[in-house]
Amino acid sequence: MSLWLAAGRIVSRDGVITDGAVRVEGDRIVEVGTRREVAPRPEDRVVSAPDGTLTAGLIDAHTHAAWAGSRHDEYAQRLVGADYEAIAAAGGGIVASMRAVREAPVEALVSALRARLSRMLRCGVTTVEVKSGYGLDEASERKQLEAIAEVARDPSLPSIVPTYLALHALPPERRGDRAGYVRDVATRWLPAIARAGLARYVDAYVDRAAFSVDEAREVLREARALGLGVRLHVGQFADVGGAELATELGAASADHLEHVSSPGADGLAQADVAAVMLPVASFTLGQAPPPIEVLRRAGVRLVVASDANPGTAPTESLPLALALAARSYGLSPRECLDGATIHAARALGLRDRGDITVGARADLVLWELPSEVALVQPWGAPPIHAVVHGGRVVADRG
Amino acid sequence: MSLWLAAGRIVSRDGVITDGAVRVEGDRIVEVGTRREVAPRPEDRVVSAPDGTLTAGLIDAHTHAAWAGSRHDEYAQRLVGADYEAIAAAGGGIVASMRAVREAPVEALVSALRARLSRMLRCGVTTVEVKSGYGLDEASERKQLEAIAEVARDPSLPSIVPTYLALHALPPERRGDRAGYVRDVATRWLPAIARAGLARYVDAYVDRAAFSVDEAREVLREARALGLGVRLHVGQFADVGGAELATELGAASADHLEHVSSPGADGLAQADVAAVMLPVASFTLGQAPPPIEVLRRAGVRLVVASDANPGTAPTESLPLALALAARSYGLSPRECLDGATIHAARALGLRDRGDITVGARADLVLWELPSEVALVQPWGAPPIHAVVHGGRVVADRG
Repeated sequence: MSLWLAAGRIVSRDGVITDGAVRVEGDRIVEVGTRREVAPRPEDRVVSAPDGTLTAGLIDAHTHAAWAGSRHDEYAQRLVGADYEAIAAAGGGIVASMRAVREAPVEALVSALRARLSRMLRCGVTTVEVKSGYGLDEASERKQLEAIAEVARDPSLPSIVPTYLALHALPPERRGDRAGYVRDVATRWLPAIARAGLARYVDAYVDRAAFSVDEAREVLREARALGLGVRLHVGQFADVGGAELATELGAASADHLEHVSSPGADGLAQADVAAVMLPVASFTLGQAPPPIEVLRRAGVRLVVASDANPGTAPTESLPLALALAARSYGLSPRECLDGATIHAARALGLRDRGDITVGARADLVLWELPSEVALVQPWGAPPIHAVVHGGRVVADRG
Repeated sequence: MSLWLAAGRIVSRDGVITDGAVRVEGDRIVEVGTRREVAPRPEDRVVSAPDGTLTAGLIDAHTHAAWAGSRHDEYAQRLVGADYEAIAAAGGGIVASMRAVREAPVEALVSALRARLSRMLRCGVTTVEVKSGYGLDEASERKQLEAIAEVARDPSLPSIVPTYLALHALPPERRGDRAGYVRDVATRWLPAIARAGLARYVDAYVDRAAFSVDEAREVLREARALGLGVRLHVGQFADVGGAELATELGAASADHLEHVSSPGADGLAQADVAAVMLPVASFTLGQAPPPIEVLRRAGVRLVVASDANPGTAPTESLPLALALAARSYGLSPRECLDGATIHAARALGLRDRGDITVGARADLVLWELPSEVALVQPWGAPPIHAVVHGGRVVADRG
């Protein structure tokens, strides 16, 4: 199967091609150039938008999309001033989602995740990182990861990078037994999950009301020893040294970073740890943005992700996160696009995608937009002409 | 044709029905109650979402959706600090869209508007106010209004309320001739447009860099005399007395209102002029919200609209505006929903819609959301189960 895609504008790391075309054979990009240079062949399916813009498929590098239930009641409380950490301490927050996930049969998790990923695809997203972390006991974490694995087998949905979010919150039944919980995670649950091949990354939430640097280190060192990559939630509410831990461990990414010091940022840059910005969460929490200029000056690679989760960002639109990143965080349109393509790919350890280049995987979005700049305007869901995933047209306009 | 819709939650002005059902015959709602009270008949098409929420179809009371072209370059300038009024003074802004609209054949305007309205429908919007205002000469304003009239004939798209935005910006060819331009609008273009039946409302943009109260009064008094309703853009950048003019004229709505005094708000309430909030525009402009508490205390009816336009809000998602109204303006979920249904209907002079009640027009949205509170979370485009417009299912999930 082969495709010929033509667009008014093709945006890649090499620059912009006006009136360009891309040929795809199988699941690979085989030619990129102007419409004169790249002609369609008789067997090609033609997809053309002379006023449109072609980019690499968007990559959402941080989601909790395998959730069950809804936390809209908490959101209503927060709209009138309730505090996220106080809600969590009162049994809401992550633990509320834990109850819903524990109760849900695996089929329900599969079906909810499938529906969400299908809507994400229509927002131009072709690869999604999906975390567990709402099970909080071995069986329930595995149930979440198995649901993720099941959905990952569907080629009509975005590709999935599965992450075991090993330390997210302490479940109520382990209150007073933090050390035992962390030990169980590190020495029993994690090795079993690694053996079952259910996760490519292991994540931990390091913050003042979550887990400490030492607790996270215990689990993530074990992850490293098992050959898995690591990523961290750090500095969402306070800087407790999470960036430094990400640097020490050679993490793939440090995510949130509303609170990070200048030396912390320098460390991330030196260890090539990507900084994953989650502007939908800080918007709903009413937080100030991360210190973007500090991260930029340090030379940290900036990624933008949706953080799709039932509490702070029940969105399925990575473009909405890009609009907030541009307007509220001050990222340039180029930083936004790179942060949702090439840098997101590298932060997920994927070398075969995130750019429009010969030999890359054919994950592409043809936007009904005249420029990638228009993509960061606040559409909600920007108009698409076609989404190509692994060389197949999986969504189109209308 | 008849429909039976069942939902976990039905939200109307009368309150909430848990496990409710609605029957529709033709284009009207004929029964509303619990599932026990309202049984399906054999001939009914059944649309059921036991975990979903049924609301009235959303009504977008302020859009400029009949545009051509893109102003993403301006947006990029504004992201790095350029000022909206300065861009307009330099020939950008409204005048940039004027050039695109003047050049566009009417078919191009029809096709762009049709595509936008079709995407709006998928965001749950069943009635849309659409303004002209990018023609700025008689022929081009009529071309825009004729495109709007053409699209309004399509029953598969949202219903349209057409507005002649008579004073939006002074076109370059009339510079130095403001008085003559306003006189032409009031005495020649407006009467001809009224005679042709192309508009139900007439609008004017009253602000420090737009038109004065006296200029707007000259045009809008004429509109009144011709039997048309009036609405105004007021107080977006400065309070120059626009709210008072809206009160004096008995306008249907005063829109924007980032700048309005407490007596101005009291006047709106007394004259029953709705206040149309446009949070996407103030988000992209980086503006502080309108004085919501002042408006609320005065008892003004609050409407929330998308302001869909190529400059400050190229969005097609009224739900995105609701999310911003909740989080950035501090409107309650109930105020958001009322502002996009019942109050929006009244602000457009529509008495047959905006609520779920026997005898009302069957414009309904079945959301894949457990509550109307979830609707104001920042989805971008919230998941829908079905959209019913005039008794017909015009969009469904997926």
